[in-house]
Parts: sequence; structure tokens; C-alpha cells
Amino acid sequence: MHLSWLTLLFLVPTLCVGMPSTTLCVDDVRGTGDLGVVVERATGSVLIVETTTHTRLAKIQGLGDLSHASVVFSRDQRYAYIFGRDGGLTKLDMLRCEIVKRVMQAGNSVGGAISQDGRLVAVSNYTPGGVKVFDAATLELLADIPTQGSKVVGLVDAPGQRFVFSLFDAGEIWVADMHSPRSPKIIKFKEIGKQPYDALISPDGRYYIAGLFGEDGLARLDLWNGEVQRILPNYGKGDIKKPVYKMPHLEGWAMAGDYTFVPAIGQYAVLVVDGQRIPVHGQPVFVIARPDGRHVWVNFAFPHNDTVQVIDVMAMEIIKTLKPGKAVLHMEFTPRGEEVWVSVRDDDQIKVYDTETFAEVATLPADKPSGIFFTARAHKIGL
Amino acid sequence: MHLSWLTLLFLVPTLCVGMPSTTLCVDDVRGTGDLGVVVERATGSVLIVETTTHTRLAKIQGLGDLSHASVVFSRDQRYAYIFGRDGGLTKLDMLRCEIVKRVMQAGNSVGGAISQDGRLVAVSNYTPGGVKVFDAATLELLADIPTQGSKVVGLVDAPGQRFVFSLFDAGEIWVADMHSPRSPKIIKFKEIGKQPYDALISPDGRYYIAGLFGEDGLARLDLWNGEVQRILPNYGKGDIKKPVYKMPHLEGWAMAGDYTFVPAIGQYAVLVVDGQRIPVHGQPVFVIARPDGRHVWVNFAFPHNDTVQVIDVMAMEIIKTLKPGKAVLHMEFTPRGEEVWVSVRDDDQIKVYDTETFAEVATLPADKPSGIFFTARAHKIGL
Repeated sequence: MHLSWLTLLFLVPTLCVGMPSTTLCVDDVRGTGDLGVVVERATGSVLIVETTTHTRLAKIQGLGDLSHASVVFSRDQRYAYIFGRDGGLTKLDMLRCEIVKRVMQAGNSVGGAISQDGRLVAVSNYTPGGVKVFDAATLELLADIPTQGSKVVGLVDAPGQRFVFSLFDAGEIWVADMHSPRSPKIIKFKEIGKQPYDALISPDGRYYIAGLFGEDGLARLDLWNGEVQRILPNYGKGDIKKPVYKMPHLEGWAMAGDYTFVPAIGQYAVLVVDGQRIPVHGQPVFVIARPDGRHVWVNFAFPHNDTVQVIDVMAMEIIKTLKPGKAVLHMEFTPRGEEVWVSVRDDDQIKVYDTETFAEVATLPADKPSGIFFTARAHKIGL
Repeated sequence: MHLSWLTLLFLVPTLCVGMPSTTLCVDDVRGTGDLGVVVERATGSVLIVETTTHTRLAKIQGLGDLSHASVVFSRDQRYAYIFGRDGGLTKLDMLRCEIVKRVMQAGNSVGGAISQDGRLVAVSNYTPGGVKVFDAATLELLADIPTQGSKVVGLVDAPGQRFVFSLFDAGEIWVADMHSPRSPKIIKFKEIGKQPYDALISPDGRYYIAGLFGEDGLARLDLWNGEVQRILPNYGKGDIKKPVYKMPHLEGWAMAGDYTFVPAIGQYAVLVVDGQRIPVHGQPVFVIARPDGRHVWVNFAFPHNDTVQVIDVMAMEIIKTLKPGKAVLHMEFTPRGEEVWVSVRDDDQIKVYDTETFAEVATLPADKPSGIFFTARAHKIGL
């Protein structure tokens, strides 16, 4: 029996994680509240990371075209759903470090969402347009919502088991009630503005705000009463528009305290919905509030994408300018905001900063990193 | 070798969770985002539960006096820290279903908090007063903050690695900067009002609001600029005070959209900080906003503690009255608010409701349940 006991002890750690298909990322039971996924866009791979001691746990290959990829998480924070640009939808087990299921759901997708109850995953498509809804457990297709060829953007989940999204070409916002997953009820809001190109939902899930590319301004849908309002209708008027190298990401919009901070398209400015305008270093891409709302972090489009600036919300001015490195693509705060992870694509690095002192506390190697997503998103409406 | 393989396969599930000291609650790796702890006050035990399929995973015994017990979670959501009335501080491993460490830290404690970075756990004490700060990993005592015999209430974590708490007898609010855990820097705000008896911090961590028992009104500390203001100074004036059977829990205060809902002491009313007053069924104890802020749920003190009422925030009126059973003590929403768990002490039950239809979706047996705490709290400031 002595040999068998050695065998036993030797094999247990592997068996505990079910012989993962790649590197062994979890050699024992562990919590999943401090996990995250980093997209490596050029190589179609992702890193599984943890934020407590800033480590890489595993690298997962074979996820296809991950340019403009995004990630949502299961409500137990064990599984990540990764939406690739090529229409690939991948369910990743972050504890076993393996791909559970992967489907190619359309030719060209740009984002996804998970339902309030965690049982449905929705994917929006550029080509051929439309939204597809899958069973989060099996990735079985449950519903296909056509949009008459219109590109779908700004897909988010909303309270009441709903998905909300915008039709770029049609200039409409649609709300899909998914209580019956195979027969969604669609409410359409028409003529909300020209060419909605992205959108976000307020942290409480009440306001859905779409940015308009075809005109100045934003369209705001109040999901409590169904009213659509135009906000910031003339924010670009009179400004000489610079060429737009990169569209801002609206899911990055910052709602801090009583203010909403918006990246101005083609301008070197962050706009506050109350009308204030804060000049910044370049064309903002992500404008993200620290979880406590005291600071707002901003990164920029080429040629200023080596820089990050920090706005103090009380002073309404820039208090810090950082130079993380070449091509800063994304920033993600730890759930309580004590640190922020920054992806620096062309330096093949993730840099972690203390958000109070702005000191660099860790650096992790990553292959052309873009999006960073932490599992705390599982508990948040619209993320 | 054949026998040894049988032995191996038989033993693996147990070994994977390290031979838990009680029932086997996790027979494989699993996520921790959908876990929770239910306090069984009369028996000094807690239940580990999961909210995805409404099941009990384990019952843990031997936690001492759990009347008025509260719970916080480690940032990886694997460990629960349980604060008992007898001063016991227990660190529970929710995956191995076992007590990792337990210390008796004072004669009489009423609450605790975990620091922004998850590395410190603080406990506030009635007798002999003061706050003790422990290493979250080892429960080693790092700091002891005396309060000259004053009862400490309303202890919360705040951004910037701070703890904030109130001194009942001295009428002060103290802010402890814990960047150097063994030598906290204390800032004292004096004469904030008579007998602060509990407090909460706004979800963004900016405002610390203490309820005053010695006078009408609340004291609000703005942690961004250090200003203390009095709010609702005369909310009780002119009302015939009814005997107060139970003090409201201020951590239950609801901040929904632009409104803050407050339980009135000794009155059958919920107060809105803008001045509105909503008559309710009895003396409110917990006034808690659904995560999307559209509804506020209220439970009541004896003799009306068989009832729960739901306020619609847009209509500012009660839209539903539920009768869950005898002695409704606490309510906890799932992170995205689709369901709420309600503890019904004298029926020895946890009832789970769909928050949209108000249908009862599950019932779990529990031995005199009181507080219910879900792991999503790990990611929230002040919880």
C-alpha cells in the first residue's frame, strides 16, 4: 500500500482541478472573487490572473480573433464568457483553466452581456446584425433577434431580465424582455438620434445612454418610464473636429457622485453632463471612475496613447499625468478601487498602480494585452 | 495496484476539500461569487448557502453568542469573518467548511469591517469600548484603539484604507487611517451630536451618516472635505413617540437614485432625506434598496415583525405588503437584485422571493435565522 499512498498524494492536486488542458492554474480549492481575465488580442489567447498578489494563473489559447473582445462572468464567478470579433463565443472555466464550450455565432460581433439571473448570454453582431441569445450553461442558441441588417451596438443587461441595445443604421434602441428566453418581447424606441455607435447603462440600471455619431449629443432612455431624452445636444458645435483615430468606449463612461463624465469625440476634452468641459492630453478613449467616485481615469487615442490622466472630481481638474508606456488600451479597477490594472499593448505589459499614491506596485508580462476584466463584474448591472 | 486506484478515486473528493471538519459542502472546485452565510443566532451556528439553486451547503457549529452577529468577506470571497456579540471573531473557510481561526477579542462587540485592501479586520466594542484591528490572514492583533470607555458603534471601512466609527457616549466620529496597521492615525470629529447609535457609509464611501439617539436628526460627515453637517434635524418633532422596541439598523439605510430612505425611530414611518415621509405598517428596522434602486424593502419591529413592505421609489408609495411569517429579522438581495432572501426566525425558515413578481421561489430550513450575508459584499465599500 505504501506505493499507492505515494501515488495518491502525488495525483491529488491534479485531480482536484480535473486535469486542466493547459497549465495547472489552481492546485487546490480557491475563491474566485479576486480573479480576472486579460485579453491578449494578437494571439487569440487570454490570461487568467488574480489581483490579491498580482499573479498570472494561466494562459488559455485558441480563442480566435480577440481584437475588440469583451468578457462577462457567471454569477458564481467561476466561468468567463469571451466575445471575439470573429463571432466566437467561448465559455472558459477559470478554475480548471480550460475551455468548456466554444461556438461561432456570427460573422462579426462586437460585444455581449449576461442576464440579470445569469442564465442567458447575449451577443450583438455588426454583420449580419441582430442579437443572439444563448443558454449560459450549455451555449445552446435560444433566441435570434434580427435587426433588418442594422448593426447592433451598445448591448447591455438591465434589471427585469432584459437586454437593451442600439441599432446603428436604424437609429433605434430596442429593449428585449427575456422572461421567456425562446420568445423575447421586444419594445422598440425609434428616431432616438442618428447612428448610435455605443452605449452604457447607469450603475443602477435605470438610464441607458447611447452616443450618437451622426450628430452631436447623446440619447438617454429612462427604463423606469420609457422616455427618451436628448442630452448634450450641441457639445461639439463650434469646435474644430480633429480626425477621429478611435471611437471612445462608452461603457467606459464615468458616473461619479452627481456627475457623468463623457469622452468627447474628436476633441481633446472630457465632457461633464452638467455642461463643464475638462481639457485633456488627447482624444479620450476610456473615461472611468474609481469605484469611490473621487477620481476619474482617462486614456487616449493615438498618438497620445502612452498617457493616462487622472481627474479629481471635487476640483474638476487633472491632478496626475502618468506615462505607463506604449499603447495604453484599457484600465480596470480592483473592486474597492485601491489599485488599477493598466494594459500597455506595445510594451507587452500589465502595470498595476496604487490609486492613492499613483505608485507602480506590480508589472506582469502579457502578449499585446488589451481588455482587462475582473470577476466583480458578475455582481454589477450592465457589466 | 487495482485496490490502490479504487482507494484513490474514493478518497479524492474528500481530499479535494481537505477533509472538512463538518459536513462536506464542496465536493469539487467551485466559484464563490454565489455563496452566502446565514446566522443561526440561538445555536451559535451559521449556514453556508448558495444562491444560484437555493441550497444549504453546510452548517458550522461553535461560533458562540451570535445575537446581533455580522459578517464580512475576504476579497477572494473564500473566507467569512463572523463577529459575535460575545466578542468572538471567527474566520470561516467557506470552501473547506471549517473554522480556520477563532479569537475572543473583547467582552461585548457589535460589529466589524474589513479594510479596502482586504488585509485588515476591525472589530468595534461596547464593553470595554474601543476598536481592535487584526491581520485578516492570521487574526493576529495589530492595533488596539481605546475610546476612553465610550461604546463604539457604526464601524465601517472607507476608501483610503480607513476605518470610520462613532463614539456613543462621547458623541464623536473617529476616522482611523490604517496605512501603518500597528500605528493608526486617528482624526477625531467632536460634538457631532448626542448619542450616535449606529451609522452607514454611502455606497461610494464619501458620506458617513450617523443616527442620533439623544436628539432628532443625523450627523453627516463628508470624508472628501472633512465637514460635518446635521441632516433631518427635526424629523421627530411634533410626533408622539411610540415605545422603541428595536433600534433601526442604519447599515440598512437605502440610497436609491437621488434619495436616501431612513427608518424613523419610534415612528411608523420611513423618512426620505429630502423631507418626504412615507407612512408604513410599523416601526421600520431595515430599509433596504433593491440593487437597481427602483424598490425599497422594509421590515418592522415587534409587534409588526411578521410583515415586509415594498416602496416604489418613483411613486413614493407602498406597492406591496408581504407576510413572510413570524419574526422577520433580515433581508439580503442577490447581487443584481433579481431575488431577495428573508430570514423568518420564529418559523425557522429562510424564504426567497422573486423581487419582480413577489412570488415565493424557495424556502430553506434554518434554526432561528437572523442575518443573511452574501459574498458580493466583499466587493463593496462599507459592507
